[in-house]
Formats: sequence, C-alpha cells, structure tokens
Amino acid sequence: MLEQRIIRNLQQTLGKEHVSTDKADLICYSYDATQQQFLPDVVIYPATAEEVALVMKLANAENIPVFPRGAGSGFTGGSLPTRGGIVLSTERMNRILEIDSENLVATVEPGVVTEQFQKAVEKLGLFYPPDPASLKFSTLGGNVAECAGGPRCVKYGVTKDFIIGLEVVTPTGDIITTGGPTMKGVVGYDLTKLICGSEGTLGIITRIVIKLLPLPEAKKTMLVLFDSIDGAARAVSTIIGHKIIPTTLEFMDGRTLDCVRQATDLEVPEGARAVLIIEVDGDREFLAKQVQKIQQLIQPLGVVETRTAETPEESEALWQIRRSVSASLRKVNPDKFNEDICVPRSKVPEMIRKVDAIAEKYQIPIVNFGHAGDGNIHVNVMIDKKVPGELERAHKAIEEVFRGALELGGTMSGEHGVGIAKAPYIPLEISEKAADYMKTIKKALDPNNILNPGKIFLD
Amino acid sequence: MLEQRIIRNLQQTLGKEHVSTDKADLICYSYDATQQQFLPDVVIYPATAEEVALVMKLANAENIPVFPRGAGSGFTGGSLPTRGGIVLSTERMNRILEIDSENLVATVEPGVVTEQFQKAVEKLGLFYPPDPASLKFSTLGGNVAECAGGPRCVKYGVTKDFIIGLEVVTPTGDIITTGGPTMKGVVGYDLTKLICGSEGTLGIITRIVIKLLPLPEAKKTMLVLFDSIDGAARAVSTIIGHKIIPTTLEFMDGRTLDCVRQATDLEVPEGARAVLIIEVDGDREFLAKQVQKIQQLIQPLGVVETRTAETPEESEALWQIRRSVSASLRKVNPDKFNEDICVPRSKVPEMIRKVDAIAEKYQIPIVNFGHAGDGNIHVNVMIDKKVPGELERAHKAIEEVFRGALELGGTMSGEHGVGIAKAPYIPLEISEKAADYMKTIKKALDPNNILNPGKIFLD
Repeated sequence: MLEQRIIRNLQQTLGKEHVSTDKADLICYSYDATQQQFLPDVVIYPATAEEVALVMKLANAENIPVFPRGAGSGFTGGSLPTRGGIVLSTERMNRILEIDSENLVATVEPGVVTEQFQKAVEKLGLFYPPDPASLKFSTLGGNVAECAGGPRCVKYGVTKDFIIGLEVVTPTGDIITTGGPTMKGVVGYDLTKLICGSEGTLGIITRIVIKLLPLPEAKKTMLVLFDSIDGAARAVSTIIGHKIIPTTLEFMDGRTLDCVRQATDLEVPEGARAVLIIEVDGDREFLAKQVQKIQQLIQPLGVVETRTAETPEESEALWQIRRSVSASLRKVNPDKFNEDICVPRSKVPEMIRKVDAIAEKYQIPIVNFGHAGDGNIHVNVMIDKKVPGELERAHKAIEEVFRGALELGGTMSGEHGVGIAKAPYIPLEISEKAADYMKTIKKALDPNNILNPGKIFLD
Repeated sequence: MLEQRIIRNLQQTLGKEHVSTDKADLICYSYDATQQQFLPDVVIYPATAEEVALVMKLANAENIPVFPRGAGSGFTGGSLPTRGGIVLSTERMNRILEIDSENLVATVEPGVVTEQFQKAVEKLGLFYPPDPASLKFSTLGGNVAECAGGPRCVKYGVTKDFIIGLEVVTPTGDIITTGGPTMKGVVGYDLTKLICGSEGTLGIITRIVIKLLPLPEAKKTMLVLFDSIDGAARAVSTIIGHKIIPTTLEFMDGRTLDCVRQATDLEVPEGARAVLIIEVDGDREFLAKQVQKIQQLIQPLGVVETRTAETPEESEALWQIRRSVSASLRKVNPDKFNEDICVPRSKVPEMIRKVDAIAEKYQIPIVNFGHAGDGNIHVNVMIDKKVPGELERAHKAIEEVFRGALELGGTMSGEHGVGIAKAPYIPLEISEKAADYMKTIKKALDPNNILNPGKIFLD
C-alpha cells in the first residue's frame, strides 16, 4: 500500500481524476494476456511526457516501482505490476500527431491503437505493415516496447524496422528524444532501436516517429490445403529457397484444423492436414506472375486444394480460418501456453517434427500455427490446469520445445518477448556474459530499479 | 611508448609476426579518410575472437587504449588512434564463413571487403544492398561499426537493416553473441542494433550475421540533367511525394558538374545545372511502367536531357559521372570537408538554398551531391588550407550547415558518423540528457574507457 501523501502527490501532478486507487480499476490493470494477476497500488493516466517525467522523479525518490502499460495484450507479462506500485497507463496519450504524406513519416503518441493508425495512413495511400494479431486493441507504444510482429513481417520486417525516432522518459525521469524524421541518422548510439523491444525496462515511450511505405497497388491471397504437415512445411522452405519472399506465409497444422473444424462451420476438407495462407502484394501484373510461380513450386508437395482470392472480400473470407484459430483453441481446451519460437526458415519442417515428438512424449496436445515464412511458429501447448500433473508436464514440454528451437539455431521468442513468462528460461538462450552486458545497461540507466523491475531478467 | 613487456605479451598472444611496432606500419595505420594523423604505439592483427578478448583483458589490466580498425576509410576519424596505444586491425579476420542460400543469410568475419561479399552473394542470386562509395576497399566490420549507407539505401535501408546477429568482444574482454540467423528475435535487448553504428566504442565485432535478399530480376538507370538545382531538388520530393521509392535517387549540383567538366572528358551539356541519377529495380515489366511514370512526373521541372540505360554496361557508363566526382573535386581544390547532413526528403530544396547562402556568406565554394532520395546530402566545403583564414571560415560555414539541417528536422550525419570530426558539434543535435543516457551506457560497459576512447563524445 502506498502512503496517502504519495497518492496526493500523484493527484497534484496529474489531476485527481487521472489517479485511481479504486479496487475495480486496480483489478482491471492487474492482468494481461498471460492470465496472471498482480494487483497494483495505484493506476495513473498521464497525458504528457512532462507528467510522466514528474512521476518517474517521484518514484525514484520514494522507491516505488512503475509499470508502463499499453493495452495489456502482451503474452509474456511485460506490463504486469509484479511488485505492486504504480501502473502507468498510456491510454490518454492517444493522438496521431502528424501524418506527413510528402515524407512518408508519421508521429504518434504511444496510446494510439495500431489498427486505427493503419486505417488513418491507408486513407492517404500510405502503409504501416506490422500487423500483430492484437492490432484491433493493442497500442503502438506496446508494439514498440515489445517489438511486435505479425503475418506481413515476412516481407516487410517487424515493428522496429519502421520506428525511426522516439521521445522517451528515462528511468530516472529525464525526457530525451532519439532519432528523428530523417531516413538516415548516425549521430550517437541508436537508442531508438535499443528501446524498441526492451519491454518497457529502459524508458517510457511518450512519442513515436514512424516510417511509412506507399500502399501496395494490389494483393492476392491463396489458401492452400496440404495432405501432410511435412508438405506444407517443405512448401515454405521451397518458396523461400527459390528466392521468393511473399508478404505473408502463414501456417496451420492438422491439430489447428481439427480445432477449427470442431469449433466453427468453416469448410475444411477431411484430407487436409495442414494449411498455408500465402499473400503477395505489389504491382497488379507482377502479382499474377508470382502467384503462378508459387503454385508451380508447391503443387508437387501434396496440395489437396487451392483457393485464391481476387477481391478484398474474398481475401477476408480466406483469412477467416486463420482468424478463427485462437477462439477455436479456447473452445476445445481451457488453458494454453502460447509460445512463439523462431527458427531459420529452412528448419521449419524439422522443428515441427520435434514438437510432434515432444507432444507425444508428454502426452499433451500441441497445436502449431503462425508465421512460417520467417520461421516464427506459435507453439500452443494445450492443457487443463485442473487435471493433476498437466501443468508440470506442460512446463517440461515447453522447455524441451525451447531447447529444440535453440539447437536449430533459433530463438525462444520471435515476437512475444520475455517478460516474466520466459525469464526463467533466459539462460538457455543468452550466455551469462551477454546477459551481464544487458544487465549492466539496465543497472546503469535505472540505478534504483524502478522502471518495470524484474522483467526479462530475474533479479 | 608501450613497455617492452607489453609488446612481448602481445607477441605471445598473437604470434610475433602479427604484432608490429615498425615505424612504417605505425604510419600506415595512423590516418584515415579525414587526413588527420595519430601515431599508435603498436599495430596488431588478431585472427580470432579469443585473441581479441585476450588483448582487451590485457589492455584493461594495463590501461592501454585500443582502436579497432577496418580499412581506415571512414570520414570522421572513427578508427584513428587519437591516444596512441593499440591499433587492432581486423584484416586477418577476412573469411566469408557461410552463405546460406536456403535461408538467405550469410555469416562473415569483420575484415571481409564489402564489394567482395556482394559479388559472392550475387553469384548465388542473392543481394546485399548497402553500397557505400568505399565498397571496393571498406570492410563489412567497418560498415557495421559506422552503419554505412550508400545510393541504394533509398529503397533498401542502411547497413543496420541487414545485420541480424553479431559476435562481439566487449570492452572488458568477454566474447558475446547477439541476435542470430533467424528473421525475428526478441529475447533480451537488441544489442545487435546498438552495436551497429556505435563506432567501435561498445565492442569489437568479430563475426557478422547478415540478412540477404533475392537479387532483383532487372534494373533500369536514368540520368536526368536539369536546368536548375531547384528543378532537380523538386523532382526528388515530387517522386517521393507520389509514393514512388526508387532504388537510388542520386543528386549532383551545378558546382559538382563544373568540377566534373573541368577534371574529366565526360559529356555534360552546358545548360545542365544539376543531375539526378534515378535507378529502379525489380520485375522487368514493372520497371518499364515505373520509369515512364517517373519521367512524366519530372518532365515539367526543367529537364534538359534524359539518358536511359538498358544494359549493365550502359548503366555503368551513366554512373561514371557520379563516380568521377570525388576525384574531380580533388583535382579542383586541394582540401575539402565532406559532411553528410540528412533532412526530411521534402526539405532538400530548402536545404540546398541554405547551403548556397552559406557558401555565399563565407565566400567558400560548397559542392553538393549525394543520396537526395533519402534527404542525405554530401556537402563538400572546398578550401585550400594554405590560404590564411580559409580554415576558420570553413569551420564557421560547416557549423551553419549543421544548424541549418537541424532547423529543418534533420541530422548532422546520415551515414558518416561522429568520430572525432563531428564530436565538437554533438551538443547542437543531442540534448545533454540524451548524451548522458548514451555516456552512461558507454561508461558502464567500458569502465576503464579502453575501447576507442574519445570518439563520438569529447571526454
């Protein structure tokens, strides 16, 4: 519990209505997509970098942990107030400040919802590619802090690749700007990219400068059903190996399709044991050629059926199967761990075989889907926590999945981050010396360990 | 002068033949493209990360500064041994370790020459876009340390955008790896991007993992001569404003053309006061459409002549004018300061007008050329140091150019870095608090200030 004088201080800084100790609010801000819960002492809603800076100065002086929070849609607990203290919500900093069509650059506040930003720039013929599954509610600030990905990252890259400048409040309460609206810049260290993906531990993002692209003229979507998982996985490496990089190359395995069949009335033929959704975008005429080439390449790999979309509506219909997955899984199994390993793209078939063997060994259903085009597979370990022993078996299975990915030159996380969920596994991937290098940076910049303490590294 | 026991220690670590205190060698490694000279005490040529780590441990124990060096082609003194001590040359670490065609990823040692790497991957149908003008001799390690750019960065991005993993020896002599061969990865801080562009101050790069692209099917080059500098500058913002991002959009002003006329027998019509070299690449049929659209857009802006190339040989002929610039300038003026400001692309016309006014004010010829497509202009301040007062006037002019770029939302350096050349101007661009954030990182990671001390920040 924070002392009343601290609450009063926050109220004086932010205005009474922007500081809440109401139990209902505390509960609302106590969880994220991990389903874990930690109650904060207070939730605050600053509107400016100056207010955020004052809060950080106070928090340092009083030794109160601060947990910045976008929409709380993260999968690894990056925004969870694990040590009580202050949840700092960015939801009032939600303005699109500028979309500069001439320079293909936008400036936004961190609380802007990703999809709303995408729609705003698309109206002007511009394009912001990163498309995490949470885009309807997740915020750009959260996307930057976690370096969010999404299906289109195969061709376009991740959030970080589009962030060229930031305004940041440091852990000790200074306001700094990094980068800026130019396409290049090499004056000093690249703090912009350091802060992207640092999960809210090195600074609180209060403004974001974003590089945009011209909106592609057209896109084409193919949904290809395969008779085996291996055929689909080999299709991924065949396409990339032939030096074609589609916009998206989404993958779903047979168990995913079983869940979709059980939970929806979408049409999935019985013989289909895996699906790829392949999207290409760009010049209209070029697309037709590219689709044809992709079809030729993958046809020998056990294609059961190919559906293609010519219009946005048809494309949306094809994506329905992919979009129904999360809800379908929930209907079939009550609890799941959604991991997101990433391996070199050609290793996807081998990784899938490893996961199947692990599922078999621990007698736990594991459902695989995700962004196979960049080797980023969402490995969903499906359990019922109420069944004795299942949770323990799941943890063992997850550790083996991580070890398997690392053996193939991969990583434990392509886009979800570490937070608290993967922190115990950090030594599997990052050597002690490399972790020391990172911790040295954190410790130097946040000497009182005030900003999002305990995330990424157990401390 | 280093004590003999230290030289002996280095000889034991690296082998006698890989440690030199020969005066001729010391002189060879005493300068870079800035033409400034600082004599080291010893030059060493390690072959492995382990050797580099041992050297750093020794240097820390004995408090000897270490200056890592690629080809010494930098424009800001990043590799100059400003405090004597050890020059650590990466030239023996020059192997391309792997080109993985299946995954479009390569692994190299830092001493590989950029052009040799490009040729090696192009033979396999792959593509490494960053193309600094120094590519025939500069090394990939140096390119990464400085985050090199080049003409093709307009479309493809800078060196950093292609670096996905590193092996690095820390300032205190530990070997760490960052990132890896996957297309995504968000486990821990992004040390890869932090070290890119940190100018050899945060670690010595001993291995580089590089993302490659498929080699584009074709390219088309246009050389367009304009009757005024303003027309060419407006052509740049018109093309980008119409949401076309060519591969390159290189610009040369009238004074540059005068130098080319004086120094070469290349054909440049008298009425031409500015040039753009516009290159597009990709699908063959799409290129024809794109060239046509660009020509329509820029024709009203005072085009004197357009030359187009269909074959690689014709394209090379068009590039001759651009490639002759550096040599031409040298012939015309003995000394120059080659700055590389970067402004938002639409501000190029305004920036050029500012530079012209500054040249007029200080009565110093300033020649502008460079990568206008991303607003990155090479501003060449041409003087003769032997003429009394010219050097002082040049420094004043340069500071005004920097201030002018910053007023337009730009930066002092798009690709050359800070080194020692721009260090005095750092406070113009980076706030004290932001510089503190950077210095805190440097100080924490390099507590004895051993690795490339005094670069970027005056200390």
